[in-house]
Amino acid sequence: MTDAADPLVIFTPSGKRGRFPAGTPVLTAARQLGVDLDSVCGGRGICSKCQVAPAFGAFPKHGVSVEADALSPWNAVEERYRSKRGMLDGRRLGCQAQIMGDVVIDVPPESQVHKQVVRKRAEARKIVMDPATRLYFVEVAEPDMHEPSGDLERLERALAEQWGLAHVKGDLRTLQMLQPALRKGGWTVTCAVYHGDGLGEARILHVWPGFYEGTIYGLAIDLGSTTIAGHLCDLVTGEVVASTGLMNPQIRFGEDLMSRVSYAMLNPGGAAEMTRAVRQAMNALVEQAAAEARIAPELIFEAVIVCNPVMHHLLLGIDPVELGQAPFALATASSLVLWASEIDMRMHPDARIYVLPCIAGHVGADAAAVALSEGPNLSDELMLVVDVGTNAEILLGDRKRVLACSSPTGPAFEGAQISSGQRAAPGAIERVEIDPATKEPRFRVIGCELWSDEPGFEAATRGTGVTGVCGSGIIEAIAEMRMAGIVDASGLIGSAEAAGAARCEPEGRTHAYLLHDASAAGGRRILITQGDVRAIQLAKSALYAGARLLMDQLGVDSVDRVVLAGAFGAHISPKHAMVLGMIPDCDLAKVTSAGNAAGTGARIALLNAAARREVEALVTRIHKVETAIEPRFQEHFVAANAIPHATASFPHLAEAVTLPAVSFNAGGGEGRRRRRG
Amino acid sequence: MTDAADPLVIFTPSGKRGRFPAGTPVLTAARQLGVDLDSVCGGRGICSKCQVAPAFGAFPKHGVSVEADALSPWNAVEERYRSKRGMLDGRRLGCQAQIMGDVVIDVPPESQVHKQVVRKRAEARKIVMDPATRLYFVEVAEPDMHEPSGDLERLERALAEQWGLAHVKGDLRTLQMLQPALRKGGWTVTCAVYHGDGLGEARILHVWPGFYEGTIYGLAIDLGSTTIAGHLCDLVTGEVVASTGLMNPQIRFGEDLMSRVSYAMLNPGGAAEMTRAVRQAMNALVEQAAAEARIAPELIFEAVIVCNPVMHHLLLGIDPVELGQAPFALATASSLVLWASEIDMRMHPDARIYVLPCIAGHVGADAAAVALSEGPNLSDELMLVVDVGTNAEILLGDRKRVLACSSPTGPAFEGAQISSGQRAAPGAIERVEIDPATKEPRFRVIGCELWSDEPGFEAATRGTGVTGVCGSGIIEAIAEMRMAGIVDASGLIGSAEAAGAARCEPEGRTHAYLLHDASAAGGRRILITQGDVRAIQLAKSALYAGARLLMDQLGVDSVDRVVLAGAFGAHISPKHAMVLGMIPDCDLAKVTSAGNAAGTGARIALLNAAARREVEALVTRIHKVETAIEPRFQEHFVAANAIPHATASFPHLAEAVTLPAVSFNAGGGEGRRRRRG
Repeated sequence: MTDAADPLVIFTPSGKRGRFPAGTPVLTAARQLGVDLDSVCGGRGICSKCQVAPAFGAFPKHGVSVEADALSPWNAVEERYRSKRGMLDGRRLGCQAQIMGDVVIDVPPESQVHKQVVRKRAEARKIVMDPATRLYFVEVAEPDMHEPSGDLERLERALAEQWGLAHVKGDLRTLQMLQPALRKGGWTVTCAVYHGDGLGEARILHVWPGFYEGTIYGLAIDLGSTTIAGHLCDLVTGEVVASTGLMNPQIRFGEDLMSRVSYAMLNPGGAAEMTRAVRQAMNALVEQAAAEARIAPELIFEAVIVCNPVMHHLLLGIDPVELGQAPFALATASSLVLWASEIDMRMHPDARIYVLPCIAGHVGADAAAVALSEGPNLSDELMLVVDVGTNAEILLGDRKRVLACSSPTGPAFEGAQISSGQRAAPGAIERVEIDPATKEPRFRVIGCELWSDEPGFEAATRGTGVTGVCGSGIIEAIAEMRMAGIVDASGLIGSAEAAGAARCEPEGRTHAYLLHDASAAGGRRILITQGDVRAIQLAKSALYAGARLLMDQLGVDSVDRVVLAGAFGAHISPKHAMVLGMIPDCDLAKVTSAGNAAGTGARIALLNAAARREVEALVTRIHKVETAIEPRFQEHFVAANAIPHATASFPHLAEAVTLPAVSFNAGGGEGRRRRRG
Repeated sequence: MTDAADPLVIFTPSGKRGRFPAGTPVLTAARQLGVDLDSVCGGRGICSKCQVAPAFGAFPKHGVSVEADALSPWNAVEERYRSKRGMLDGRRLGCQAQIMGDVVIDVPPESQVHKQVVRKRAEARKIVMDPATRLYFVEVAEPDMHEPSGDLERLERALAEQWGLAHVKGDLRTLQMLQPALRKGGWTVTCAVYHGDGLGEARILHVWPGFYEGTIYGLAIDLGSTTIAGHLCDLVTGEVVASTGLMNPQIRFGEDLMSRVSYAMLNPGGAAEMTRAVRQAMNALVEQAAAEARIAPELIFEAVIVCNPVMHHLLLGIDPVELGQAPFALATASSLVLWASEIDMRMHPDARIYVLPCIAGHVGADAAAVALSEGPNLSDELMLVVDVGTNAEILLGDRKRVLACSSPTGPAFEGAQISSGQRAAPGAIERVEIDPATKEPRFRVIGCELWSDEPGFEAATRGTGVTGVCGSGIIEAIAEMRMAGIVDASGLIGSAEAAGAARCEPEGRTHAYLLHDASAAGGRRILITQGDVRAIQLAKSALYAGARLLMDQLGVDSVDRVVLAGAFGAHISPKHAMVLGMIPDCDLAKVTSAGNAAGTGARIALLNAAARREVEALVTRIHKVETAIEPRFQEHFVAANAIPHATASFPHLAEAVTLPAVSFNAGGGEGRRRRRG
């Protein structure tokens, strides 16, 4: 019906263009051209989601000149909307403004359906809004005695006709609220429709009378062994409206996962007890997030959960006993769609839960979420992703292939099993530098921006004191000791004489380095002991051996990029990690931190339903390597004991750092005992 | 791989035949030929469902002669099964017996998957076993660290490979019980799989370790305004193992449906109160049925519910207010699949509920169930189905077209609004005969086989006494009074003189007929009053007018068959109903009772999943006629007042009965008052 005389419409930024008869609403033209222009009310001038910014003047690039009357005049609907809600100058409602002449129309980011959510890191994958639960405004036909049909069936028909939604069904609760809502709304309602059940079925989770002015929310949850973190997101804009966290109350049943599995095995009803505890905590998280955002928890329509396999089973009420013994069989590895009520979570009563798939018995939905967030499968470069916790989950791969394993690092990286170790909390040493000449240290503690040798440090830390060393602090301390010649390549701490460091003091038959002494003021003496170095050596050897095992499988000796994920990974210094030999050699500029990548993966799956299908497909393609049954893991583990284990393996490191060629193994003491052991 | 030299196998009763290599198990041959031979264990010699009866000797009809060695010898598996469970002589296990020569093999009814459930009435549709929930025995692969996959995924794969079941998913509770069950069963389990969710998805509702020797149950529920009836069925054999019922406790909120709707409208929280009451009663029904069958309620995996629209909404927790006012909009007319827990029903915790679709605001899922049970849509003859209750639901049609309406008969047919009326209970008069010569009555009461004039009647009824007249009794009484010339065509009761009946006594300005007088012994005087006759006239006129309205729509003056459904319909006498003019004229031999057809429809939907799709399709094809807005309904209603309303309309009746041409309207009394009213 269009011809060459019809006005030409060009949409930016997409560049889509077409001719439409004069009088065509901009929204109609956008839909026909497949331009990504939002609308909740379907063009009824209510929702204002279809705001556009027409441009006037000459556009030589597009070959058009836009006159001032290229769109129909500002109308009463737009005026009413502007006076009620406000609207930026120059904006028009796409459903009201009609095309009268050639025109260039910009669709601003907030008017795009598939808008991108801002992420801080440029290298991270973009999050495109495509949530599973969406709002739709519809006009529903009134009942008619001559054509009997239920209100729900007429609503379903309206959704099909006005929004093209097929196979939409109402939950029972929708049915219970539907009749009053339709009548109160004058036969219009706004529906929250969830597109994620079964084989292409969608469910109406809620109906509001008339046009619903509010928004709906979803919660992305990273359920860790130690902490539970949640990001509450606006499911329309993608914005994070609250970020909150709390301790996992299961800690009282065991600090690490295996002790919780043991608790379940040794105590009848122990698994159920832990299930109750974690579900209570999940509800506390929901309440906390809702309170922080000042919304009712009933407005949370979805949650996405990522967690390790043991937490996964405990949350779901599955006894984790099988995860404690070979062959580490998961009850299920698939993603799950549940009603929130099935796991006793109190949000919207019909809210749905999506649990990401697990990769294997030791590589859980959290690792799958890291893979989703960091996208090694989308990378041209060979990428190593390490999520360090009590177990380290390791992913290695690129577009062609992705491998995964879990390595039993133990809790040393988290400050446990370290003489002065502690969790990352105010007062904990997190950064360390040791002067190679004087062998004197300086450090920073969590909660204070100053270094310990800067004026005001003591005053600033008077409240907390210096209480211990956290995971990143112990790594820096030992790496700095190695660089300053206080520790040799075998991991031995030298004596005061041998190392030339007055702070090296005897401790039994070995030595310890005094990092901080506040004993004069009644405070602590914080030492790095030989035992601490050994604990870190075991942990880093396990981590390195895991990465190395995957590299063997791919037949490579180096990687192009290293991503450190997890709360711990966010604070780790790449240089120090490499001096220790925690991670394989890599250009230091290409070692980056991803922060809480598992949590980000949960947020991606929350905001983009297609990403759920993507991660489900990805986990089936990820090749799992089981460290427990690979003999080469043990070989790598033993070989990786030195700091770093073999200078030749770290060419990039060798360029950046010269490690002193010291050796404190005089044939006696700890060194000799160790050879015998 | 077969050739003409291979043994020929002929299965009876299907007649299916084929040649198979010697050594082929009978079950394998049956499956390849598509013979309906059951098996739960998939041919592992455990379940014994595949029992067959081989025949030996000459079969000229089939052109074969079967030698004694046509099957492999009786084997150890069969011996073990026979010694453990017993087996009829001549039977073999189809999975063990191998075909060695030409053979004729009969599949006895109990070995057929799609066996027929016995129904009493020959004219009723057959029930073929095809339940939505079925048992499957599977062998599941053990977990393997080299190929990580969840136990559930391996179970799903086993169901796909061993039973061809695609898209099977486990409920959360299945996941919780799966790992111990698999290990206890030595990597074999029996699953209860429900095939009825969404778009072709199936769900595992339960797993038992190894081979589950028991069975599973389903409950077919007819939720009426007054009574709730349940048939507990074995979902494997189709057998009804318990039939039970109880009063609907909502009666305390109103005897009839409209008074319950009023209660909901007038009392805040009234609808919710009634919802709680009916759900409690549903649970009492479940417990009662389970207790009667001596099974745990947790073995009930499915329920099918049929009910009228008001009960439908109240059960589902939907305020029925819209059903009390035009246009009588249902919240939903579609069938529903719910978790039992969604409506607080306590059976198996993952049990599913199927609620039949409604036809319209006044014609509910109970009418749909009647249609499913009686199958007017499958009939070559034009069939009228009448389900009499407080409202009468009426179906009229044949293969080509089915119409439905609901007619407001009021509760008179149930004994309400009748001076001596009562519910059908021991002591209630249910059959009446009046001698046309002496005008003396005799009757029978519920709970006694004797007529009132037979010796021993008084002794037999001493316990209960004669307490009143139930619905079928009042119909017979008035029809007999009409046939005996005690009531004239206009419905007037004659005086003792005019009617020649000493039992006619004055009552105000009208007369009443004394049916029974036990006052001498301190019992009741039971009278049929003029008011009783008027109440029945109103009710029967409404019923007839509804049927007549549908006949008008089809353009017919008579019907080929009449089916009386409902508890009341089961006891009604066709002749008396026709004398009253309740139902249109029909060959009396073709007026039959269907008993509780709604309950039977529920049972069909429970035992045959395909019937659910059938009734869902059927209700969309049934043309609903709304009596409330059809002016002709009023015309028919007024015209149908006489008893019967016009002799010419009842040629079949006229052949069977001669009605006396009496008239008691002497221009005064009740008759005159009525003309003024």
